[in-house]
Amino acid sequence: MAENKFWSDIVSKLDPYVPGEQPKLANLVKLNTNENPYGPSPKVSAAISTELGDSLRLYPDPNADVLKQAIAQSLDVDVSQVFVGNGSDEVLAHIFQGLLKHDAPILFPDITYSFYPVYCGLYQVDFTQIPLSEDLSINLADYQQPNGGIIFPNPNAPTGKLLSLAGIESLLSVNKDSVVVVDEAYIDFGGESAVGLINRYPNLLVTQTFSKSRSLAGLRVGFAAGDVSLIDALKRVKNSFNSYPLDRLAIVGAVAAIEDVGYFEETCEQVITSREWLATELQSLGFSVLPSAANFVFVKHSGHDAAVLSAGLREDGIIVRHFNQSRINQYLRITVGLPEQNQQLISSLKALLGVA
Amino acid sequence: MAENKFWSDIVSKLDPYVPGEQPKLANLVKLNTNENPYGPSPKVSAAISTELGDSLRLYPDPNADVLKQAIAQSLDVDVSQVFVGNGSDEVLAHIFQGLLKHDAPILFPDITYSFYPVYCGLYQVDFTQIPLSEDLSINLADYQQPNGGIIFPNPNAPTGKLLSLAGIESLLSVNKDSVVVVDEAYIDFGGESAVGLINRYPNLLVTQTFSKSRSLAGLRVGFAAGDVSLIDALKRVKNSFNSYPLDRLAIVGAVAAIEDVGYFEETCEQVITSREWLATELQSLGFSVLPSAANFVFVKHSGHDAAVLSAGLREDGIIVRHFNQSRINQYLRITVGLPEQNQQLISSLKALLGVA
Repeated sequence: MAENKFWSDIVSKLDPYVPGEQPKLANLVKLNTNENPYGPSPKVSAAISTELGDSLRLYPDPNADVLKQAIAQSLDVDVSQVFVGNGSDEVLAHIFQGLLKHDAPILFPDITYSFYPVYCGLYQVDFTQIPLSEDLSINLADYQQPNGGIIFPNPNAPTGKLLSLAGIESLLSVNKDSVVVVDEAYIDFGGESAVGLINRYPNLLVTQTFSKSRSLAGLRVGFAAGDVSLIDALKRVKNSFNSYPLDRLAIVGAVAAIEDVGYFEETCEQVITSREWLATELQSLGFSVLPSAANFVFVKHSGHDAAVLSAGLREDGIIVRHFNQSRINQYLRITVGLPEQNQQLISSLKALLGVA
Repeated sequence: MAENKFWSDIVSKLDPYVPGEQPKLANLVKLNTNENPYGPSPKVSAAISTELGDSLRLYPDPNADVLKQAIAQSLDVDVSQVFVGNGSDEVLAHIFQGLLKHDAPILFPDITYSFYPVYCGLYQVDFTQIPLSEDLSINLADYQQPNGGIIFPNPNAPTGKLLSLAGIESLLSVNKDSVVVVDEAYIDFGGESAVGLINRYPNLLVTQTFSKSRSLAGLRVGFAAGDVSLIDALKRVKNSFNSYPLDRLAIVGAVAAIEDVGYFEETCEQVITSREWLATELQSLGFSVLPSAANFVFVKHSGHDAAVLSAGLREDGIIVRHFNQSRINQYLRITVGLPEQNQQLISSLKALLGVA
């Protein structure tokens, strides 16, 4: 029964996703939502500038073909194997509705991107959460059971831990009757993409985003790559939901971002270097740091409560993410910032820990 | 049974929406998708330019508060009565899922925005199509029957015909147990908005778009206004689908558009003037022209087949919309263009009709 007679039954059952805080105060060191510390390629702004003005009165290309072509070329796949959306969150929503809703429950880790169970609520998809192993790794052997689909991020969030491509391929080879979605939001910071496997596994769908390694969280562009039949399902859902999910500026901006390979590689490299510096510093302060292939680290300190540390950092103007969730409530997820921000974080932690 | 074992059952049942053509050829006179012939306010480009650069690396405000505030102020309603989305198509999708899915079928006209039955397919909403009267008007008395909701555009599309506010209010007063959605995509070209009624009718939801009167089809911004309880339902759906549907550029661009009242009023006035000129000219060529309160006219000629005329115009580089649909397949929907484009249309039609 809906709480309000005008609400559809589903509405009161929803348990909406809560994104990381987007503080409106300036001058905060914002290490809580895994944005890239470096801005987008200067070519993005230049490309968007050319699209400002009269042409905004016209609808965008509903299929965003130029963007699909740029992505396809970058991934070395066919354009028919690419689907784009208004952020990878929208792409994932269509995946849950169009490819993961079956009679059998889908499988995903107990500790993972917390939007997955929300989508399941929205589309009434049954699911089973598979516990991470003791060291917070995904054990793919646990996923070899009847299912309506499998989804996990690689590297996983918020742990940052990476699965090998060989492991993913072995899962694919024994799970041919349902879709396996590899959510590669963070893959460019140290992992190997599974996109190279899509021609061999018609049940593999890989998602990526422009919000992290392309520094365009503010533009909302994400995509999926997979067999044409999977992509066709997503197109059918999209064309029954919103003809024009990507605006003109997002299309040209994302094309410019993906074409500037040099900038992309350089900034990814800088983030990786900073991550390793940060991990070493945090370890020297007594934190245990999970091995990360992402643009964040997931850390805990045996002697200090994570919520207390998070609050202390906040008083110093530094925001990190603390999940008040069983198994990980003693961890902090810290986005890799600019070198000076990382330094500021370490200094603040030293003071909080009482280290000279 | 899905066509492909990986597809959810719903996918093969979908009958996706087909938007008007977005031709990639330049130099066409594009009068087929009801875009504004005038570009957006110059303040839009200026506002977007200030948001280009480093800030694109950061997520947008998930609630787009500054935009909601600007819209609320413009409509003279409270910010809690406003919902924004990635084009009004996305807003409508959430409305169908969150407010129109009930046991009883919803009601909408047989000739109307053709996305409505598509949304019903996507969310499995039962519906009954109410025939327009002989003169292609909506007769609101026909909607006084048990229903799970009612939706219609005002002015209607593709007819352009307007309902009076008094008529809408009388429908609201006898239909208190389900939501009435008034889709005002074209209201600024000659109608009176129902937004002023939302404080008296908790079941009234009004949608508008920035794609028509604000000249921003390329930016994808739409909104709904209604009682806070209806808006809360939409927020719950949105926050279970995509946290950040509006990108940073769309938010600041739409704010600038709504704040430039002078430009908005001036361009609307020009479109209205051109529409009346176009209607008179078309009538003098023997067309019957439905009275339009929108930025298009819906016309037929007793002596010439609409499909033939449409094809003939296309050979002259002019695209209009012809719906191959029962009851209206002898009509053309022609968007009001710039004065010189309207003149070109009339000249081309004169030649096609063999008028000196």
